[in-house]
Amino acid sequence: MTQRGTLGVAVVGTGKMGADHVRRIDGVTSGARVAAVVDLDTARAERLADGIDGCTAYTDPDAAMAADDVDAVLIASPGPAHEAALLTAFEHDLPVLCEKPLTPDAASALRVMEAEQKLGHRRVQVGFMRRYDAEYMRLKELLDSGRLGRPLMLHNRHRNATLPVPGFTSEMLINDAVVHEMDITRWLLDQEITAVTVMKPRPSSNAPEGLQDPQFVIFETDGGAVVDVEMNVNCRFGYQVQAEAVCENGTARIGDAHGMLVNSAGQWGGSIAPDFVARFEDAYDREVQAWVDATRRGEVTGPSVWDGYAAAAVCETGVTALTEGGRREVKMIDRPELYRS
Amino acid sequence: MTQRGTLGVAVVGTGKMGADHVRRIDGVTSGARVAAVVDLDTARAERLADGIDGCTAYTDPDAAMAADDVDAVLIASPGPAHEAALLTAFEHDLPVLCEKPLTPDAASALRVMEAEQKLGHRRVQVGFMRRYDAEYMRLKELLDSGRLGRPLMLHNRHRNATLPVPGFTSEMLINDAVVHEMDITRWLLDQEITAVTVMKPRPSSNAPEGLQDPQFVIFETDGGAVVDVEMNVNCRFGYQVQAEAVCENGTARIGDAHGMLVNSAGQWGGSIAPDFVARFEDAYDREVQAWVDATRRGEVTGPSVWDGYAAAAVCETGVTALTEGGRREVKMIDRPELYRS
Amino acid sequence: MTQRGTLGVAVVGTGKMGADHVRRIDGVTSGARVAAVVDLDTARAERLADGIDGCTAYTDPDAAMAADDVDAVLIASPGPAHEAALLTAFEHDLPVLCEKPLTPDAASALRVMEAEQKLGHRRVQVGFMRRYDAEYMRLKELLDSGRLGRPLMLHNRHRNATLPVPGFTSEMLINDAVVHEMDITRWLLDQEITAVTVMKPRPSSNAPEGLQDPQFVIFETDGGAVVDVEMNVNCRFGYQVQAEAVCENGTARIGDAHGMLVNSAGQWGGSIAPDFVARFEDAYDREVQAWVDATRRGEVTGPSVWDGYAAAAVCETGVTALTEGGRREVKMIDRPELYRS
Amino acid sequence: MTQRGTLGVAVVGTGKMGADHVRRIDGVTSGARVAAVVDLDTARAERLADGIDGCTAYTDPDAAMAADDVDAVLIASPGPAHEAALLTAFEHDLPVLCEKPLTPDAASALRVMEAEQKLGHRRVQVGFMRRYDAEYMRLKELLDSGRLGRPLMLHNRHRNATLPVPGFTSEMLINDAVVHEMDITRWLLDQEITAVTVMKPRPSSNAPEGLQDPQFVIFETDGGAVVDVEMNVNCRFGYQVQAEAVCENGTARIGDAHGMLVNSAGQWGGSIAPDFVARFEDAYDREVQAWVDATRRGEVTGPSVWDGYAAAAVCETGVTALTEGGRREVKMIDRPELYRS
Repeated sequence: MTQRGTLGVAVVGTGKMGADHVRRIDGVTSGARVAAVVDLDTARAERLADGIDGCTAYTDPDAAMAADDVDAVLIASPGPAHEAALLTAFEHDLPVLCEKPLTPDAASALRVMEAEQKLGHRRVQVGFMRRYDAEYMRLKELLDSGRLGRPLMLHNRHRNATLPVPGFTSEMLINDAVVHEMDITRWLLDQEITAVTVMKPRPSSNAPEGLQDPQFVIFETDGGAVVDVEMNVNCRFGYQVQAEAVCENGTARIGDAHGMLVNSAGQWGGSIAPDFVARFEDAYDREVQAWVDATRRGEVTGPSVWDGYAAAAVCETGVTALTEGGRREVKMIDRPELYRS
Repeated sequence: MTQRGTLGVAVVGTGKMGADHVRRIDGVTSGARVAAVVDLDTARAERLADGIDGCTAYTDPDAAMAADDVDAVLIASPGPAHEAALLTAFEHDLPVLCEKPLTPDAASALRVMEAEQKLGHRRVQVGFMRRYDAEYMRLKELLDSGRLGRPLMLHNRHRNATLPVPGFTSEMLINDAVVHEMDITRWLLDQEITAVTVMKPRPSSNAPEGLQDPQFVIFETDGGAVVDVEMNVNCRFGYQVQAEAVCENGTARIGDAHGMLVNSAGQWGGSIAPDFVARFEDAYDREVQAWVDATRRGEVTGPSVWDGYAAAAVCETGVTALTEGGRREVKMIDRPELYRS
Repeated sequence: MTQRGTLGVAVVGTGKMGADHVRRIDGVTSGARVAAVVDLDTARAERLADGIDGCTAYTDPDAAMAADDVDAVLIASPGPAHEAALLTAFEHDLPVLCEKPLTPDAASALRVMEAEQKLGHRRVQVGFMRRYDAEYMRLKELLDSGRLGRPLMLHNRHRNATLPVPGFTSEMLINDAVVHEMDITRWLLDQEITAVTVMKPRPSSNAPEGLQDPQFVIFETDGGAVVDVEMNVNCRFGYQVQAEAVCENGTARIGDAHGMLVNSAGQWGGSIAPDFVARFEDAYDREVQAWVDATRRGEVTGPSVWDGYAAAAVCETGVTALTEGGRREVKMIDRPELYRS
Repeated sequence: MTQRGTLGVAVVGTGKMGADHVRRIDGVTSGARVAAVVDLDTARAERLADGIDGCTAYTDPDAAMAADDVDAVLIASPGPAHEAALLTAFEHDLPVLCEKPLTPDAASALRVMEAEQKLGHRRVQVGFMRRYDAEYMRLKELLDSGRLGRPLMLHNRHRNATLPVPGFTSEMLINDAVVHEMDITRWLLDQEITAVTVMKPRPSSNAPEGLQDPQFVIFETDGGAVVDVEMNVNCRFGYQVQAEAVCENGTARIGDAHGMLVNSAGQWGGSIAPDFVARFEDAYDREVQAWVDATRRGEVTGPSVWDGYAAAAVCETGVTALTEGGRREVKMIDRPELYRS
């Protein structure tokens, strides 16, 4: 791959998310093409490959990564398959965009982190796509400017109209949903989360029997900030993600999404996004473009394996706080040299 | 009446508006009481008077104004009866709050103005209550501060859910509704209106056959400002009054009324006031209180007979512009000494 | 006092708050007059009384309450003087509007509650004026309507530009400021607070050395709701009070206060109220008018002695949570018969 | 060019706008590459071409369009050069994205339209990029849905902080700025503009001597709508484009751009875009991508030569209305068959 050439990407996993990335790289992203699709379901992979010039279907990730026209890997398989795919990519020394979670738990994330350190350079960007949302980027820019002083608190709202998938459990609220706020908190504040408390309102009657929904989660950080998350997966009215940073000399709020205002039938207002695709589609586009652009420049940017590990460690603490109650401290290893900038 | 005594008010006309003022003076306004109610419908007047300590019912306005316990007059009878009531009040030299319109046309308004000049001092406050609306007051204050520079344009929206009364005519849109924007334009800008143009969109299918609704009315002023009014009496979604002043260095908009924001059923937003009572109730309260307070101090403030005359003159021009088309210039007498401040 | 007569009010305490109530009853409130002002500082009381027809200055509350022209009492003296003044009012069986706090602690509040029960009927309205704020009233109405389902969470923001008074302590953040959210939470949700946790962000550099500001306070209620309060007394940018109720099927937010929108110098937006007077002046007016109206009808409405006691009990718990850390349960007596509706 | 191949684009004109399109096609747009850049300034063209793999610099548009690797043309040269470049592209039968204006006047636009008709199929997309702005697209979708009923009025605001270029004339306000509202009005309403009136507020003291700024322009359409445009090129506070469609049963407003809300220093609000690049960058990206996508599918979509001609005809009428006053009717030929869908 020369810097200016078109990046040949192998997409590993062609479920809902993988197929969407295939469509994106084929028709939206500049400077990249889908060179390979990999899925255990051969027929599915071949169907996808058929529609794209010069795209080959594979069942084995290793074979795809060994192909001459593959310059980079996008991992979108189920979480438990990530570790193996990442290690294979490391063997081929290929740049990787790995969908979140990096791996399902802190121990496996540690193993991936060790492997990348052995490689000696960063290869992985983890798919925390909120960092590429235009509003979060503006908020980050404002906080980094120091114009409002030091951040003291961060209030987050994360609302889904209905259960993301049937059978969603109380732990999945932490692992699959609150995890976004864990990462965004660490990124916005540039601080690590040191303790987690989970408050449990009496569940909504919209929630299935036995599901602790909503949850009100509180993080403490090593910079002394207190962060709260309203996590809600049955709010019925739509998908809504909001954040307000409270700083010493001002506050900033994003997520009201008041683009078009309509007056009709006794109401002023507008519509709420139905789901995370509608809300964050631009962020996904921007994330993949940023990865392609950096890769073509020979760089690795964005969320690192360290960020994937930290999310996993905080999630494990969060689940303990949820199930056992009280305030729980987060245990993490020291940040390795490779992940300090 | 001593300055600190309670003001005894005679309310002339006890229809919807008059009865509402009786209720207001009895239970909301400080420093005043309803001493008399006057209506040709004796039974109606007596029913009202019965509920209020020390209140007498009259049929004849002159008798009421002659009563010892009447210190001031509030005229809320139909427009055609205003001239006579005002002249009677002048005979008794009583302070008056006269509901709009001052009188139904410019000629009669001129006669009232001459009579007040003969009296030698201002006695009348005209009921242009929008000047007492908290948001218009803030806008006026901002414009007067000069912070945004000279006003160049003023955009107004005036929307009713449905016809204010059955049988509302195209001319009544000008005389009963746009008249508010005429007065508020003159007050906000402190300029006179010199020309009127009425644009006629193809009528809404919500409008009854033959009614020119909506209308888009354009004023030019002697200060060089251009002012537009969207006038709409069948907008269906509620009652909404908005204004945006465009100045040399900024703009200011009022009327969005975004007090409480609700997320529900796929929508963010809030409710729109159903009618002018809901929208302007506070303005009415403030208007009457301001009149009572000024009267107790021995002063006359607020919109004057000159303002009532100007509104009538501009309305007449507006009706000509509506019926004959094109741009029409406003003819007015020079402002008499008494009405210059 | 007949129902329709003008209510003669004795105002006890003529400091900043008392003097403001004197001005209000004299010039804003309908149906009441200031019959007496009471202050240990005789000169001060006489100065105030001089400006008002028929108003007498007193040093002794008992003398004022015994006067023939005194029908009701407004207590605005310092908190520690409230208990004695309330008991005196009970002896005269006079209706009372008592500024918050009812008394400085739960024990004294209990004594007042016992005295009122002995009297056999409610006499006291406690000055939790937020219940009379137009936006909180709309929010309460919406919650009571059930349209959004059961409330699950309540997010509150309470921000002051600077310390309300010099020497403000960490405990005073709870007792003087968060106390408003305690009452408004109980009122909005119609639930009792059962536990308090205080999170302590690293203090703002705007806060004086040693002051824990901001604080992030969490209430749990007997209805299973989780309520958070951002309490901030050095936010610099203005005075701001916001609340968002999160219900099963929707949320409702108040306090954005977006009345007039200005575009200027690279910014859209509007001004933030400088202090609680600007924000809540209308609420004070409405509170006193509601008290006068109810009193003239022979009724006692609004926040009761029970509400004053509950606030004191929750405050005591809050101070413990602040100073000792962790989650603290609230201890309260059972609600006496008199205070059940 | 096969449907799935990468589109080789020749960019004609490499001034500010042309260079920006080169950057866009090189690094943002998917499925296209810059195959040629054309400029009379050879050095400038070569500098640009040097940075891009497989890109050739030309001085002569005809030579570039004849090149084997050129599949499509983007014209970004000055307006007077458009006609010749378009006719050359027609000779090569190449798809064209032509920056606005199509040509400088209605007569030359007619000639282009005749040439394209002779070709027998549409080849040109005109660069009215507002049609690709996300908010305008949502507004169009809402209007087309019929949910609010027929559009009656359209209120537009178009504000620039300062003169776009030095020496901007009163006519250029119409031709270079209001032209956007002309096109967007025709597109949103799917109606032709039949008359133009230009109201002239007393100029802002921010405007250079002799410039009629602001202007308040009124369109009438063949569907009976009345449309107003506030055009302002010295508003000082930023770049702002807003539109409110007033329909029979509701209104819809875009352009408030309230993405991030900041509280600081006595103000709530946010920042206003400094210029049209910041406001419409996404629209440009989307416009070029839409053109590339359609071209690869062998289609021509978007604003047509007819739209370019209509804008020119309305602009000419607007300039007459500006210089001669009064209401002026628009003269246009009948819509040719090729431009009816």
